[in-house]
Amino acid sequence: MALEPDQAPVDSITLFVALLCSCIVIGHLLEKNRWFNESITALAIGLCTGIIILFTTEGKRSHILVFNEELFFIYLLPPIIFNAGFQVKKKQFFRNFVMIILFGAVGTLISFVIISIGSMKLFKKLDIGFLDFGDYLALGAIFSATDSVCTLQVLNQDETPLLYSLVFGEGVVNDATSIVLFNAIQKFDLSHITSSIFMEFMGNFVYLFTTSTLLGVAVGLISAYIIKKLYFGRHSTDREVALMILMAYLSYMMAELFNLSSILTVFFCGIVMSHYTWHNVTESSRITTKHAFATLSFISEIFIFLYVGMDALDIEKWKVVSKSLGISAGVSSILLGLVLIGRAASVFPLSFISNLSKRSESGKVTFKQQIIIWWAGLMRGSVSMALAYNQFTRSGHTQLRGNAIMITSTITVVLFSTVVFGLMTKPLMRLLLPRKHLSSTMSSESFPSKPMNLPLIANGQTADFEMGGDDIPRPTSLRMLFTTPAHTVHYYWRKFDDSVMRPVFGGRGFAPCAPGSPTEPLLH
Amino acid sequence: MALEPDQAPVDSITLFVALLCSCIVIGHLLEKNRWFNESITALAIGLCTGIIILFTTEGKRSHILVFNEELFFIYLLPPIIFNAGFQVKKKQFFRNFVMIILFGAVGTLISFVIISIGSMKLFKKLDIGFLDFGDYLALGAIFSATDSVCTLQVLNQDETPLLYSLVFGEGVVNDATSIVLFNAIQKFDLSHITSSIFMEFMGNFVYLFTTSTLLGVAVGLISAYIIKKLYFGRHSTDREVALMILMAYLSYMMAELFNLSSILTVFFCGIVMSHYTWHNVTESSRITTKHAFATLSFISEIFIFLYVGMDALDIEKWKVVSKSLGISAGVSSILLGLVLIGRAASVFPLSFISNLSKRSESGKVTFKQQIIIWWAGLMRGSVSMALAYNQFTRSGHTQLRGNAIMITSTITVVLFSTVVFGLMTKPLMRLLLPRKHLSSTMSSESFPSKPMNLPLIANGQTADFEMGGDDIPRPTSLRMLFTTPAHTVHYYWRKFDDSVMRPVFGGRGFAPCAPGSPTEPLLH
Repeated sequence: MALEPDQAPVDSITLFVALLCSCIVIGHLLEKNRWFNESITALAIGLCTGIIILFTTEGKRSHILVFNEELFFIYLLPPIIFNAGFQVKKKQFFRNFVMIILFGAVGTLISFVIISIGSMKLFKKLDIGFLDFGDYLALGAIFSATDSVCTLQVLNQDETPLLYSLVFGEGVVNDATSIVLFNAIQKFDLSHITSSIFMEFMGNFVYLFTTSTLLGVAVGLISAYIIKKLYFGRHSTDREVALMILMAYLSYMMAELFNLSSILTVFFCGIVMSHYTWHNVTESSRITTKHAFATLSFISEIFIFLYVGMDALDIEKWKVVSKSLGISAGVSSILLGLVLIGRAASVFPLSFISNLSKRSESGKVTFKQQIIIWWAGLMRGSVSMALAYNQFTRSGHTQLRGNAIMITSTITVVLFSTVVFGLMTKPLMRLLLPRKHLSSTMSSESFPSKPMNLPLIANGQTADFEMGGDDIPRPTSLRMLFTTPAHTVHYYWRKFDDSVMRPVFGGRGFAPCAPGSPTEPLLH
Repeated sequence: MALEPDQAPVDSITLFVALLCSCIVIGHLLEKNRWFNESITALAIGLCTGIIILFTTEGKRSHILVFNEELFFIYLLPPIIFNAGFQVKKKQFFRNFVMIILFGAVGTLISFVIISIGSMKLFKKLDIGFLDFGDYLALGAIFSATDSVCTLQVLNQDETPLLYSLVFGEGVVNDATSIVLFNAIQKFDLSHITSSIFMEFMGNFVYLFTTSTLLGVAVGLISAYIIKKLYFGRHSTDREVALMILMAYLSYMMAELFNLSSILTVFFCGIVMSHYTWHNVTESSRITTKHAFATLSFISEIFIFLYVGMDALDIEKWKVVSKSLGISAGVSSILLGLVLIGRAASVFPLSFISNLSKRSESGKVTFKQQIIIWWAGLMRGSVSMALAYNQFTRSGHTQLRGNAIMITSTITVVLFSTVVFGLMTKPLMRLLLPRKHLSSTMSSESFPSKPMNLPLIANGQTADFEMGGDDIPRPTSLRMLFTTPAHTVHYYWRKFDDSVMRPVFGGRGFAPCAPGSPTEPLLH
């Protein structure tokens, strides 16, 4: 009875909410099926709904909401990325930090160059409409953005922690890189690239990366400090939860406001919040935030896939393309091929370089693992869609032939890569990494009781499961510090964390009302 | 880095989120202050921000978001009302059900008639712009809507359960009645009221009330059944939480779609969900939903008050009014007076009638309690604002003099009643109901261990704290069933609930994985 507003949004929202409910229920029923997951279920339901709408509106439209960048970037993406930072296994992530940056930033650049140049050369042979130089560069950026959301659904953090942290961490950096690239293309005049423009671009990228990260860390620390100092739990747990949600969102929106990479900001805000703030709140707030963030992220993910499925049938675009279906198929195949090559050209050489720098055999990425890293990053998803819509549509309509082909090809690539590559990832992993291998070698690091080949880290990790962690034994040999520099950094970080950071910002063992036991087991 | 969308929404959202954070922090710091609460803090911060924006934009505007009915009715109101239903003490609510309906529906009608006729007679003496008959009736509906959000902040469910359930329950029914009235005024041609139109109107009201309630109950039961049958907790608690949130929202949106009273629907959906669904989910989902719903409701409330405070300074309206400040003040005072009289004319006679029907002295509402009921329902809030904007503005602008005066008067009445009446409620209660009285007579019913004067209910209540509740002893005397008919209904409801409803829909003692102990103590 809302005063009879525009009936349209009420219609759409009701249908969307109902579809989301059915996605959850059907996804749950298909849980045991080894092929399906929630993403593919949502895509399928979206497609079916699109067909039904298409028939009931007599072929006029297939979706119930026009794709809205604001909706995607302001409301749907923040909870997904924040939750990823909040739930990520921090130790794994930071141990592989250099490799993640290498893959995420350099790898994306390699992929961008290959896809841009490749499409420029190959599309000339096809009769597609006019595309200028900027459009080709945009294509490179669009198809370099891997789908970190989908990765989360395919890889398992507990089964393959190394691969998960590599592929997912890379995905976050990759999203940020792609968006920075894309913005640079729209802003800079890149028709004649000089070395000075290139340097400016690189400087811009490093600046964005640093400031975005610092902003996220700062907001996270402020939230920890406020909640620790004022001890909110005294009065109400709801206030703590509300403050955490709002501060996390604030970090994202501030990054947006300052034109930083909001994805990086909110990701690091999530990491800091889970390391400090989360330990300062009451027991019930901890359970609530853990599940509430996961739920919000879950709903956003299904929402995106549902939308992509529904939008795939948008009749306006297909009408423009229908006369040149062969060309569209050609474009899609070329792009898929370039995506495969571009990723191979970044993953294998970079893994080789990374392996060269590792002394011990255990730290190296095996060839089989490289194949999985290559494969798991092939999926293209919502970021690609959002960028494509931004470049090739004006307010949701696609009249120009070349633009229409690009949009339908993007949809084809996204659908194909999500469904086909996505479906094949689990069987591929089972083939390359047999179960035994999965649960022993790969995930040994998450069980501190097992023998470790890196005693420094093993100690730090064990300490993390105790209160305080002040009792880390000093390394017995100086040689070790030189052979494992990354671990030395980690060791000094822990010292600094325990002596300076935690007393100020709280955290495990320094929470205002320290619970008697570690909280982790309670939550599982 | 969201592809540089319209910068304006990012600006506004960032500022709004930052303000919400500061409201929470400041509200927390002022917690011990007996005068302030979060609502008044948010109003004050909104006013200050409004002044700052007014100066920085050189008097051009004071708010950063144009008031949006859609935002209010589709996003902010549902969590507040759902949470109210979810957390309400069901026993108290249903025991006073008849009285709540009497106060909420009949009382609102009385108030509506008095304010409409009063303003029609009194405004003629003032030189205000043109207002037609429909406008006066709309005024009656607008100022009959009490602010249930504010009531929640002033009265305490544990200290004064009877008053809380009466005033709050009345508030929900009253909101629904006001909105139904308002819609009827905009739809029906009420310039010449005949008895047939009146009967049609009454029929419409009863129909809306029944169908809205049934829809809410149905959606709640479906959610309980799905979660019980499929046993979601097996795989993930996030799915359970997501499904509960989405189903609750679905009930609201469906009511909107069918033009029912969505407030009533979502309220009853909340009641059913807390009675059945909540008991079917895992332990951590229970904690999560309890706090997540409360948090969402809390954020929405602060948002509304922040907005109302910020909007109070809207320069456009005050410019039109500035030449006739005396008239505006006159209109506001008249409306405030009518609100006072209208509520008095409904509360005192209806309490008298209600008392007549009660046999025992303990069930009667004392005169002091009547004064508090009268006073606690005087606050006007967001629903009044939303209705006034709907009637007197066209797309956010108020050029007509009469309309501008009505808007500014509404703002004045809302601010005055919230701040002055709101601030005086706590001291008034302390004056009329001394502490001793508060914690013994008034809240005795929430402690089942104390001696009860109504053995039937007392048994039901004790059983509710045990598992199952199959062991309710049958009443020893038939006479009792006749002297206390309401309690007999309650007794048979409990029998029906235990033998039919709970085995199908779950609920305390019938959850798929019954925990060993009652969960209530865990959550406090």
